[in-house]
Amino acid sequence: MKFDVAETLRRFRVDSGKNFRLAKHDPADLAGTGLEKATAAESLARGVARLSALQEKLYAQDRWSVLCIFQAMDAAGKDSAIKHVFSGVNPQGCQVTAFKQPGPVELDHDFLWRHWEHLPARGQIGIHNRSWYEEVLVARIHPRILAAQKLPPRVVTKDIWAERLEDIACHERYLSRQGIVVLKFFLHLSQDEQRERFLARIEDPEKNWKYSASDVAERRHWKDYMAAYEEAIRRTAAPHAPWYVVPADRKWFTRLVVVAAITEALEALDLHYPVPSEADRAALAEAKAALEAS
Amino acid sequence: MKFDVAETLRRFRVDSGKNFRLAKHDPADLAGTGLEKATAAESLARGVARLSALQEKLYAQDRWSVLCIFQAMDAAGKDSAIKHVFSGVNPQGCQVTAFKQPGPVELDHDFLWRHWEHLPARGQIGIHNRSWYEEVLVARIHPRILAAQKLPPRVVTKDIWAERLEDIACHERYLSRQGIVVLKFFLHLSQDEQRERFLARIEDPEKNWKYSASDVAERRHWKDYMAAYEEAIRRTAAPHAPWYVVPADRKWFTRLVVVAAITEALEALDLHYPVPSEADRAALAEAKAALEAS
Repeated sequence: MKFDVAETLRRFRVDSGKNFRLAKHDPADLAGTGLEKATAAESLARGVARLSALQEKLYAQDRWSVLCIFQAMDAAGKDSAIKHVFSGVNPQGCQVTAFKQPGPVELDHDFLWRHWEHLPARGQIGIHNRSWYEEVLVARIHPRILAAQKLPPRVVTKDIWAERLEDIACHERYLSRQGIVVLKFFLHLSQDEQRERFLARIEDPEKNWKYSASDVAERRHWKDYMAAYEEAIRRTAAPHAPWYVVPADRKWFTRLVVVAAITEALEALDLHYPVPSEADRAALAEAKAALEAS
Repeated sequence: MKFDVAETLRRFRVDSGKNFRLAKHDPADLAGTGLEKATAAESLARGVARLSALQEKLYAQDRWSVLCIFQAMDAAGKDSAIKHVFSGVNPQGCQVTAFKQPGPVELDHDFLWRHWEHLPARGQIGIHNRSWYEEVLVARIHPRILAAQKLPPRVVTKDIWAERLEDIACHERYLSRQGIVVLKFFLHLSQDEQRERFLARIEDPEKNWKYSASDVAERRHWKDYMAAYEEAIRRTAAPHAPWYVVPADRKWFTRLVVVAAITEALEALDLHYPVPSEADRAALAEAKAALEAS
């Protein structure tokens, strides 16, 4: 099956918030690619192999780094997308961080503080399973979460969410200027498909560990979450920090889009193995001679 | 000696970069306060006592935090100002970090990365002896320092210093929105006074350890440093992150201005001991009764 990958990614990429409407994106969209589940594993393997080759150059060159942020409603497939897309890459050049509820030490600091140490070093891929966007999603929907942050009342204004989104946008712009390629994935799941996946988690004993009553309770806030996601994407989408709104009702398609987006972004960089200077080449020749004579 | 502290601080505070000219600030200015060296120790002690009382409330309330940034040319008195101004405060609520040259791990990250872990937690005062401003000062004047940061060539543009200053300004705005009071001190020393202090470091055996040949070599770049400071102050001064351009030719005066600026900023907050709720008071009464009956 041949289709235009760049064209397909353009359909899902949001690099300007202007006119962005989440409702225009269909969680079951296949973008007319004609891709099918039966051959998806094969396509994915090719994508993973390309990503793996690119990562080796990224690591050797040691200049750029990549930050992949994954956000989604529960059961949208963040964990499995990460597993399938990155399993082929060298773990020495790649680190996944799953951000859970902050603890007391983290709540004593500004909200970006706990994310900082997990930012990728040069040559590395950092994968954030949830991120600072939780601060304008779950914290926005549940007042108790904001209250737990112990902010002085004077800074909790009616503009707090707009300010946080502005702060996040500036932070990501800063990171991009520092050579960190920021890619943000919203795995866009329908409420019906989420229902099916929760039922499967309840019915299949091997999936029970993934089930949480509180995840199901969050379904009541679906509309609020969609509104919060829409505003977050609108205010933080930028050419240097694009969002990808990835259809998530078919996991096999989600993974293909994610791996394609990352490899496309890496291919747009000037990745190459470090080129030895004349002095380097002379030293290499000398070392070779010494080894051969030993 | 009575003088108007608020008026004096207004003279040194820069909270808008518009029209800021470093040349208008005199390193030997006493601002007509009539203050004298002979009584400075006494005035300082009063300031330190006030600061200590305010810090206790800051710590108990556990909402606001304070970040004091000290920048200056060598021998301007950063270390001694920190020592004299903060020696009276409880070290459990206060942490000094002196930022030296970054090492290999730090150079593998964006430039704010190493500062992050040293940001003050709620209730704390963080004191940064040098700071992220070095990234638009020494890194600007010495190309080898920028080169060591291993940035991808594509992000090293002609706008790099303007971008860094914009990034710093946004970062400080973010911190202030998170309840961190940002106060920045530029200890403004004259080149002649620096010469005298370097000579004293060479002549006095107990001061020899402070002498460094490279500090003296940096004098050649004096004009470049002043231009870089001026631009940094101009682009990052804001009501939520003011600069204080503190005359530094008389150390005793420098300290009085610094302690006055910090106490004034703390007094402008709504610092108070946590007020017990009705339930808290009931629990306190119960505990008292239980203790008295035991």
